[in-house]
Amino acid sequence: MQLHKHDVVEAATSLLDEYGIADLSMRRLARELAVSPGALYWHFANKQQLLGAVADRILLSVSNPTNPTPESGDWRTGIVGTCGNLRESLLSHTDGAELVSASFAAGQSEAMSNVLAQLSAAAAEAGVDSCHAELVARTVIYYTLGFTADEQSRMQWDASGADVANTVWTENPTARFTFGLSLLVDGIAAHSHADA
Amino acid sequence: MQLHKHDVVEAATSLLDEYGIADLSMRRLARELAVSPGALYWHFANKQQLLGAVADRILLSVSNPTNPTPESGDWRTGIVGTCGNLRESLLSHTDGAELVSASFAAGQSEAMSNVLAQLSAAAAEAGVDSCHAELVARTVIYYTLGFTADEQSRMQWDASGADVANTVWTENPTARFTFGLSLLVDGIAAHSHADA
Repeated sequence: MQLHKHDVVEAATSLLDEYGIADLSMRRLARELAVSPGALYWHFANKQQLLGAVADRILLSVSNPTNPTPESGDWRTGIVGTCGNLRESLLSHTDGAELVSASFAAGQSEAMSNVLAQLSAAAAEAGVDSCHAELVARTVIYYTLGFTADEQSRMQWDASGADVANTVWTENPTARFTFGLSLLVDGIAAHSHADA
Repeated sequence: MQLHKHDVVEAATSLLDEYGIADLSMRRLARELAVSPGALYWHFANKQQLLGAVADRILLSVSNPTNPTPESGDWRTGIVGTCGNLRESLLSHTDGAELVSASFAAGQSEAMSNVLAQLSAAAAEAGVDSCHAELVARTVIYYTLGFTADEQSRMQWDASGADVANTVWTENPTARFTFGLSLLVDGIAAHSHADA
């Protein structure tokens, strides 16, 4: 039976959800699919490429073209919407924030490249000059990844029954996330005016 | 010979620098110190507590009281200085950003609690009301951790000879880091005015 790339990504995502990123190895994945490790390397040159494909699978709804950045004038809504979708997608898979952060750093996730482009376009629309738009977009992404990795660690420890300090901080995470985003959006607006 | 807590933390930090966080286990640390694992548990109830102590060791210069937040009126300098020190400390140890992020999320790092308090004080000085000062501080911390984790991943892959995409992005990381911080500082200033 032929091994399709799509099936490999689905199986890897299931392993991730069940065991976490530390236990997602090429060897284990091959065993799960009842193929030799060599069959996996035919689709993915290395583990980083595989993780990038899983990242893209996790982020399907974020980079979906049916979910575009809102039209002109609405750059604030665009940034808040894109980052909100990104956070929700990360939270919907075990270790999602850690896996997507690693894939983004390695430049292996096409979906994250799309998110970066969406946010850069929103920054440009806000009036940020073109040589700084990508930097603004990266700043917003680092905040979103950093916040969500922290939130997800707490959630997963909580689910495992570990004793985590500062439990008050876990209250109303969406409002807390949005508050930090609003700081960044205010900063972008201030920066654009300073340039004008 | 008696096993001192300080020696355990030093040995753990050396293991971290040499092998990375994935290979820093209680078992390996005990072998390195030529003691039984039980001897370690006398000092640390679990691995999270040990990682918290290593995080505090890494962050010595950031939370040092001889390195306080600048005096009144200088909250911008305080935030930029604290976050710059935090980034440098994280970069000076293998997987420093990942280890400190995990310890911060678990509430196990006293040094990160001090950083949070320093940044909250700076936010209050900027005019942010008291119920939002800690949220502002956390936003700045998540950006710093997210940026530095990404930067450190790239550096470590580069050192290992891996082929990392977007190498242009690795140019002048300090200027890029500071640019993102300036966006946040502008946002804090705008937010304070909005409250006033």
